[in-house]
Amino acid sequence: MLLSDNAAPASPEILDYICRNLQNCSDLPYGEDQQTQQLDTVVSEIFGTDTKVFPVLSGTAANCLALSAMCSSTGTIVTHRESHLCQSENTAPHFFTGGAALHRIGQGPDLISVDELRDYCCNTPWGDVHSALPQVLAIAQVSELGRAYSTEHLAELGAVCDEYGLGLYMDGARFANAVAMLSCDPADISWKAGVKALTFGAIKNGTFSAEALVVFDHKLYPVIRQKAKQAGHLASKMRYLSAQLIAYFSDELWLRNARNANEAAATLAATLQKHPECELAMEAQTNQLFVQMPPDLHQQLSHKGFELYPWRVNDTACYRLVTNWATDQKVLDEFECALAAFSRASR
Amino acid sequence: MLLSDNAAPASPEILDYICRNLQNCSDLPYGEDQQTQQLDTVVSEIFGTDTKVFPVLSGTAANCLALSAMCSSTGTIVTHRESHLCQSENTAPHFFTGGAALHRIGQGPDLISVDELRDYCCNTPWGDVHSALPQVLAIAQVSELGRAYSTEHLAELGAVCDEYGLGLYMDGARFANAVAMLSCDPADISWKAGVKALTFGAIKNGTFSAEALVVFDHKLYPVIRQKAKQAGHLASKMRYLSAQLIAYFSDELWLRNARNANEAAATLAATLQKHPECELAMEAQTNQLFVQMPPDLHQQLSHKGFELYPWRVNDTACYRLVTNWATDQKVLDEFECALAAFSRASR
Amino acid sequence: MLLSDNAAPASPEILDYICRNLQNCSDLPYGEDQQTQQLDTVVSEIFGTDTKVFPVLSGTAANCLALSAMCSSTGTIVTHRESHLCQSENTAPHFFTGGAALHRIGQGPDLISVDELRDYCCNTPWGDVHSALPQVLAIAQVSELGRAYSTEHLAELGAVCDEYGLGLYMDGARFANAVAMLSCDPADISWKAGVKALTFGAIKNGTFSAEALVVFDHKLYPVIRQKAKQAGHLASKMRYLSAQLIAYFSDELWLRNARNANEAAATLAATLQKHPECELAMEAQTNQLFVQMPPDLHQQLSHKGFELYPWRVNDTACYRLVTNWATDQKVLDEFECALAAFSRASR
Amino acid sequence: MLLSDNAAPASPEILDYICRNLQNCSDLPYGEDQQTQQLDTVVSEIFGTDTKVFPVLSGTAANCLALSAMCSSTGTIVTHRESHLCQSENTAPHFFTGGAALHRIGQGPDLISVDELRDYCCNTPWGDVHSALPQVLAIAQVSELGRAYSTEHLAELGAVCDEYGLGLYMDGARFANAVAMLSCDPADISWKAGVKALTFGAIKNGTFSAEALVVFDHKLYPVIRQKAKQAGHLASKMRYLSAQLIAYFSDELWLRNARNANEAAATLAATLQKHPECELAMEAQTNQLFVQMPPDLHQQLSHKGFELYPWRVNDTACYRLVTNWATDQKVLDEFECALAAFSRASR
Repeated sequence: MLLSDNAAPASPEILDYICRNLQNCSDLPYGEDQQTQQLDTVVSEIFGTDTKVFPVLSGTAANCLALSAMCSSTGTIVTHRESHLCQSENTAPHFFTGGAALHRIGQGPDLISVDELRDYCCNTPWGDVHSALPQVLAIAQVSELGRAYSTEHLAELGAVCDEYGLGLYMDGARFANAVAMLSCDPADISWKAGVKALTFGAIKNGTFSAEALVVFDHKLYPVIRQKAKQAGHLASKMRYLSAQLIAYFSDELWLRNARNANEAAATLAATLQKHPECELAMEAQTNQLFVQMPPDLHQQLSHKGFELYPWRVNDTACYRLVTNWATDQKVLDEFECALAAFSRASR
Repeated sequence: MLLSDNAAPASPEILDYICRNLQNCSDLPYGEDQQTQQLDTVVSEIFGTDTKVFPVLSGTAANCLALSAMCSSTGTIVTHRESHLCQSENTAPHFFTGGAALHRIGQGPDLISVDELRDYCCNTPWGDVHSALPQVLAIAQVSELGRAYSTEHLAELGAVCDEYGLGLYMDGARFANAVAMLSCDPADISWKAGVKALTFGAIKNGTFSAEALVVFDHKLYPVIRQKAKQAGHLASKMRYLSAQLIAYFSDELWLRNARNANEAAATLAATLQKHPECELAMEAQTNQLFVQMPPDLHQQLSHKGFELYPWRVNDTACYRLVTNWATDQKVLDEFECALAAFSRASR
Repeated sequence: MLLSDNAAPASPEILDYICRNLQNCSDLPYGEDQQTQQLDTVVSEIFGTDTKVFPVLSGTAANCLALSAMCSSTGTIVTHRESHLCQSENTAPHFFTGGAALHRIGQGPDLISVDELRDYCCNTPWGDVHSALPQVLAIAQVSELGRAYSTEHLAELGAVCDEYGLGLYMDGARFANAVAMLSCDPADISWKAGVKALTFGAIKNGTFSAEALVVFDHKLYPVIRQKAKQAGHLASKMRYLSAQLIAYFSDELWLRNARNANEAAATLAATLQKHPECELAMEAQTNQLFVQMPPDLHQQLSHKGFELYPWRVNDTACYRLVTNWATDQKVLDEFECALAAFSRASR
Repeated sequence: MLLSDNAAPASPEILDYICRNLQNCSDLPYGEDQQTQQLDTVVSEIFGTDTKVFPVLSGTAANCLALSAMCSSTGTIVTHRESHLCQSENTAPHFFTGGAALHRIGQGPDLISVDELRDYCCNTPWGDVHSALPQVLAIAQVSELGRAYSTEHLAELGAVCDEYGLGLYMDGARFANAVAMLSCDPADISWKAGVKALTFGAIKNGTFSAEALVVFDHKLYPVIRQKAKQAGHLASKMRYLSAQLIAYFSDELWLRNARNANEAAATLAATLQKHPECELAMEAQTNQLFVQMPPDLHQQLSHKGFELYPWRVNDTACYRLVTNWATDQKVLDEFECALAAFSRASR
């Protein structure tokens, strides 16, 4: 129940929307339909600027379609060494771009500092044919460890990108959790900071098979669409993906869901802090907690239905707990009981 | 209403199934869930053999994932010159395989004859490094013109493939329509004829975002799964795709839907044959009709909501009419009225 | 001896040049050397315009490096169905471009007519995502059957390319033979007709491991250089390739060699025409002859050292005879004797 | 003169061989010629086992052709973080394999320890679809810092590879320098240690446009040949590459050249050690020295014709000096004079 936000069900609002709007209803295929047109409008309003949205099946697809439009086959994508792109997308970035390299920077556990980016840019042999030319900076908001870049941090990264001609791409698999945590305008942490394209995560936070690739730099859009067709990501009944996203973006469902997940994580963190045998390896900002705990506690949690992935934060072995939009008081109570039982037994 | 089977809505049984089974229900991501396990069982029963099913977003993805597991980067995929693979999948087969070539054969409008395949195999310079080695025969059941290969025809093609070491792949975007038309056992026109992998079309015939890649040759499955991850086609909440397919394969929904579409097409064909200004360019076997008609009739149909794609059959210009599972008597009546109105006016 | 122009040795002038200029002489690697700089000057003089030359190992490499700079991964390369690119380069064009498709046009045996190109351009669904966007027209000068496009023909093709935004690429594996046959200014059949990049064949006509990729559109050059590095085609001691080409382009060696080959072919053609059992399937323009002959003549020629490849011209089975810069009177006399002996015996 | 071994001229023996054997001499194209056949024999003798050799234009091509035959598109190549493959081949490994990832290991400056490899293998999530499956270990003999793996070290690495099913590939761009330094049998540091394919560097050490890809695992050879054609690396007049290699492998030219380079480096090292303002950052084993020196010494050397690349060894800034087969006493004396002049002036 705290294993992964991908384990959560779809939000009922989303299935409802489909049942209400797409039953017995024909429309044009391949995104020429009304839902997909409407999706652009809905998302443009959220960002306060004219955007194009391309709905896809997965975060990997969204990330790599955008990157393939922003980086040539002989280019380099600069990213954090612990990013999802480097660690968990198999060979997708190389495949989609036809060969582009990943260059890993970042001494810290998850965020790239402005100094690190500037150092990299200063010391890169830009004209050397033996190295692939850096073309994109790909950052994750929030990071793999659940932390958010601040508005100021992003603006400064964006400025360095501009200075050196790097395109700025944002993997927002948990973008909503960042907005909820920062209480900011989505525009401020995206296009206003120089982001050219953003994957606005939705599957972990409410939809069931639709991620939103939000394209701020309009000249990327036709390239992405062609590439999507080439990669089998142009859905024939795209309206069923777009509809999920319309419901997700309506009535701030995305934000309400993210807030619920963040708050559940905060409650969990508070519970954990009462137990000295547990230690948070990382400040809890959004919906992920990284916790050092004794092996027999981990085992006992497993038996009670709380399967957890082992993780490494810096060089510390710990476990990841993830809440999601559907994590309710009952789950939180059960977890608290499980912890309490363990404490009692170990006394 | 007769433009494309991709314009049809999802079958209500499918949305119902999801609403009943996947509301408020967590499960493991990436296909480790119960729905996906169950899907294998359901499909194995249909084919009377142990199969693995990989659910994906699109026919292009299903085709090209299978082909990339069956053909190396320096191989050749042999296919009909008018196949969907050659004509309508952009550059997907080259991209997924990392470079494989398409070799077009077939003098007829859509089906590859056994003699044509044998001639090709006899005259190919198998060992010549300047040509890419043929590795796969890709056929479509039904063809782009809606015609089905007979059981015998397929068995003979399969035998030639065996003889020359070609893998046999079947693009079954409208496989259900073939089964409905042939009244055959699905096994006879697939694995019993030597088919190693089959895309069992579902989106055109009832689901909304799930195609079934059915893998008969089990050693292909792990390769397909790795490739799917690489290509962004490993759905995190795969159970929502698998659920669509379980509903589709249950209670013969797939077959009932296909029969309805085929029958609607037969009714349309009968209507058309009463109008001498219309001529079928091709015998109607399944749910597609190719009709020569006067331009002003085409225009009038358009005005009445019957948008139609222009098509070429051999070298004849005509229009394509496609029925689907949801094409009902009302549509057929309206079409008949539209034709009748035209006839009256032209007298 | 008439099997292939690739069977010919290197011109002595070329080895001499290397022995005289590159013995005991250090220079910078990767094309920063003096020979490579000088090569640009030499070739610029031949074409009367400022060109950049990239020396590579093979015609396939030259063709595909240029095409990968001119055509995106989701684009289409339009070419003659019988071109070397389609028939003899394995999967290289797909591989280098990361997926681009080949679209075959041309009813005639080898040359693309202006009408065919215009028809294609008129009837292509330019905006349709299901088809890959045409981006390049690739033509061969001379064709696979040894015929040359006239200056006027090329100018007209170039104009259609301009009109539709196609880049014009020329595979000049036997470009020198075309210039020799047409007695024209090389500029007229290349950049003045709109050619953006040209592979000026050299290996078949005098060098031993260097082809010249001549880049007229300068913005392609850095892309080609990056791609060449990626594809292992950036020679560390590039000066040894450049030196071959300098010698080849000096004192009109390229033209003298091509003339010799063309003249030898003309002599052969005259010899063949005296023998009614032989028939030329194609007018002899340059250094290739396509000859219908009785099987026992072919066999007898084989025995006397004249191995010949079987070929098809339109649908006629024949044999290809290729002369080269080194084909001398002795070879021509021997061939004449072999024919005469056959004639005597068959009488 | 000490900038790069790629700056050296070709060995006179090699040009002589070509001039003596390939003047005025026709032969079959694409490696069917006598020289290429003979090359297999010559190299098989050196290694005491039956090998196939594929001659190519560059080390990058040789490395990546071999890797593309040993690693699938969704696989991982394990290599040292400072290897040439990671640092200096642009995006070639990703491109040739169609997407494979590079995984960097190694805490030390250049060599991978047996423990590091074993740790990596133990801790890799072998079955996890989110990571690309490790398929190859690629090591360099000698390393980028000029150090050689010992026979025992290699045997142990090979045993771990065997245990985990990794193919062992060796980038031997300076393999000859390793053999010279270790005074070992080439077999012991290649196939007897489990190496499946080896690039036996030749261009840096005597030839001018031919590297030898030595294939010990014969089933890789046809895959490499197909891939070479696809990548434009099948030379039509391959005999001119093979001839360079025959001369290189005859009469131990390769070993004599490497010894000369190693000895010249040893002399340089001895000279440097007399100058306390210079410090070797790394023990000198073969033909590369990495030297910390004052900036004004570097500048003065530059003025006297000794251009040097800046390098980093671990985190120390230094300069690389490379000797080659042609580095003679005159060069060494000049360098000694330049150092002496600097010392005098700074006193």
